Amino acid sequence: MSSKNSTKVLIGGKIYTLGGYESEEYLQKVAAYLNNKLTDLSSSAMFNRQHADVRGIMLSLNVADDYFKARSQAEVFEEDSVSKNREVYDLKNDLIASQIQLERLKEDYEKLKAEKEELERQLAQKKPSTTR
Amino acid sequence: MSSKNSTKVLIGGKIYTLGGYESEEYLQKVAAYLNNKLTDLSSSAMFNRQHADVRGIMLSLNVADDYFKARSQAEVFEEDSVSKNREVYDLKNDLIASQIQLERLKEDYEKLKAEKEELERQLAQKKPSTTR
Repeated sequence: MSSKNSTKVLIGGKIYTLGGYESEEYLQKVAAYLNNKLTDLSSSAMFNRQHADVRGIMLSLNVADDYFKARSQAEVFEEDSVSKNREVYDLKNDLIASQIQLERLKEDYEKLKAEKEELERQLAQKKPSTTR
Repeated sequence: MSSKNSTKVLIGGKIYTLGGYESEEYLQKVAAYLNNKLTDLSSSAMFNRQHADVRGIMLSLNVADDYFKARSQAEVFEEDSVSKNREVYDLKNDLIASQIQLERLKEDYEKLKAEKEELERQLAQKKPSTTR
């Protein structure tokens, strides 16, 4: 569906040409996110004093921290989703069991009602003979 | 609960001292993850030809991509969890409604049974008078 394309992004004041299958919109979003990180980090004099390679690792460490936190959040939601699936399954079973019980009781009720009507009929037939 | 600590990690063959509230185990996990990324990137001659700052941005872009993918996965699971919560709520309501219906029908059934037994009793009383 998607074809390989090339997108220019501006990160930390430098232009990078990124090639890949991701949309330009996505790559610009990633670049904006990295620029925000760089702005945050640049507010520290310690960061600005570092060599380029150390700054690169500091930025990566920071992003990797976001990644691990997002992954752990995904895991929490995934576990919740799995446990909810189990709850839905159990509730559906309980509902079906309850509905079956209800259907059976309805049948028993109808049967009992018919038997009662038959008894009423019999009783009505008896009445005239006793009143006579 | 946790106190600020300092941990030495090895990333890309260099030692970095990281300070923060994260556990050493977590920081070593993050460092190991970055080392794996660097190993992957270093297999490309293009990456090795770049200046340190460009390599740093390339590493960060790669990690940021993982971050956005993890976040979007977290969102999918979160939406699923929200929709499952709604399903659980609806099923619980249906189950309660079904159980209330069942309880009422049980009461009606018992009432009908008592009425039927009364009719049987009345009919039994009539019988001897007709057989006599």
